[in-house]
Amino acid sequence: MSISFNQKLEDICNKKNNRLCIGLDPDMACFPTTREKTFQSLENFIKEIISETIEFCPIYKPNFAFFERYGSKGFQLLEKIKEFTDDRALIIADAKRADIGNTASKYAYAILDSMGYDAITISPYMGRDSIEPFIKNKSKGAFILCLTSNPGALEIQNNNDDKIPVYQRVAKIACELNINNNIGLVVGATQSKLMSNLRDISIGLPWLIPGVGVQGGNLETSIENSNRLGIGIVNVSRSILYAEDGSIQSIVNSALKYTKKIRSIL
Amino acid sequence: MSISFNQKLEDICNKKNNRLCIGLDPDMACFPTTREKTFQSLENFIKEIISETIEFCPIYKPNFAFFERYGSKGFQLLEKIKEFTDDRALIIADAKRADIGNTASKYAYAILDSMGYDAITISPYMGRDSIEPFIKNKSKGAFILCLTSNPGALEIQNNNDDKIPVYQRVAKIACELNINNNIGLVVGATQSKLMSNLRDISIGLPWLIPGVGVQGGNLETSIENSNRLGIGIVNVSRSILYAEDGSIQSIVNSALKYTKKIRSIL
Repeated sequence: MSISFNQKLEDICNKKNNRLCIGLDPDMACFPTTREKTFQSLENFIKEIISETIEFCPIYKPNFAFFERYGSKGFQLLEKIKEFTDDRALIIADAKRADIGNTASKYAYAILDSMGYDAITISPYMGRDSIEPFIKNKSKGAFILCLTSNPGALEIQNNNDDKIPVYQRVAKIACELNINNNIGLVVGATQSKLMSNLRDISIGLPWLIPGVGVQGGNLETSIENSNRLGIGIVNVSRSILYAEDGSIQSIVNSALKYTKKIRSIL
Repeated sequence: MSISFNQKLEDICNKKNNRLCIGLDPDMACFPTTREKTFQSLENFIKEIISETIEFCPIYKPNFAFFERYGSKGFQLLEKIKEFTDDRALIIADAKRADIGNTASKYAYAILDSMGYDAITISPYMGRDSIEPFIKNKSKGAFILCLTSNPGALEIQNNNDDKIPVYQRVAKIACELNINNNIGLVVGATQSKLMSNLRDISIGLPWLIPGVGVQGGNLETSIENSNRLGIGIVNVSRSILYAEDGSIQSIVNSALKYTKKIRSIL
């Protein structure tokens, strides 16, 4: 019998005693002068980060936009991530796909089945029938955008005019659809005031939390709230990938620093 | 001085006296037995449809999921669409991307600048700062998901509990952001009852209307409502691509049939 995605996530987080997700947002413009600004060098960069941190990092999250900007060549690199991690960590496709059922099933096939990602981020705007194709296979997961970290998020997601804010409605739909134990929520680290309440209405759903680091979200509040009644993983991208002098040693040190902080909070 | 996307759309629609958008959702499973089920044959299929209909069809809309399911090879084919149409029609990337500003700008670069698409469909869930990177260049357009054609759409977009339904809030944001005259809305053909009111609050914004054909939306209501106070284009995919015996002649005939109907309604 196959293990559900949420169970796999819990298992690997517990095994590595960590809740860190390294966000792979490779950007040559941020490379240090010592790193060549070529596509091959970018590929090596990704490979090196993974191989040097995978012992203690349970999850990686390639941000598809940063690969697609290189066209089909970038897409080809996205196809290699599974090989780089080699089942020693989970990989989440940060692709924020969403479409009607027939089309969504093609995205699910592309990213979860064919490219082998363990989970994908999706947007809930089109409603529950646009989510269902991503959660048919219990061993693969979907993190649904719920309450995001960006400044403009609240106008749609938590508008004062709404009797039930949209993000709460999304959390409810997510809970109702979670019969295969493979749905999670995306909750921005900058939304600390709303976290406690949101945790109460999303019991058991894992949270993927972006917005720590450059965006200014609070690590402690994020880890504490999300790991009550479920698993919460914190994504850090730029603060790790471009730490200090940008060398691989600085990258590993930064990832270790976040790991230590997370362990001390847990 | 560059022409705005919305102006370009109006010009080509008027020039070809048509409002048809052919949706490119290639699916080998739907190929007739006379068409080989190989990737090369799929590429020829796309190329042939475009070359045989471009004289009268003003817009094509590749559905990215149907290409991404073939991985980087599919992405490579998406990169060729611009070459196939050769500026004789507009191309809309049906990619439904959406993310925070920094990431959204990478998607905009990838699809609008690098791959040369004229416009892209985007999801508004993350709010206005996730839309802005797609509309900086006035000659490129963004169609924002507003009221979609699928059965589950209304739970989020038009929930009875909301004082102002989310789709109306999205329309308002779209109008406010439309300073470069390059924003449009995605409005499902199945939502005919809400169209008249939505047109009144989205004056001047072009509508991209999916859901005619297999999904059962009404062509007449869609064309009439959307072409009052603006331009409305109707997307047809499966009913053209897999018409009758699936031959190129049947495809052209179906596209011509829709064109005639549209012209008679206008």
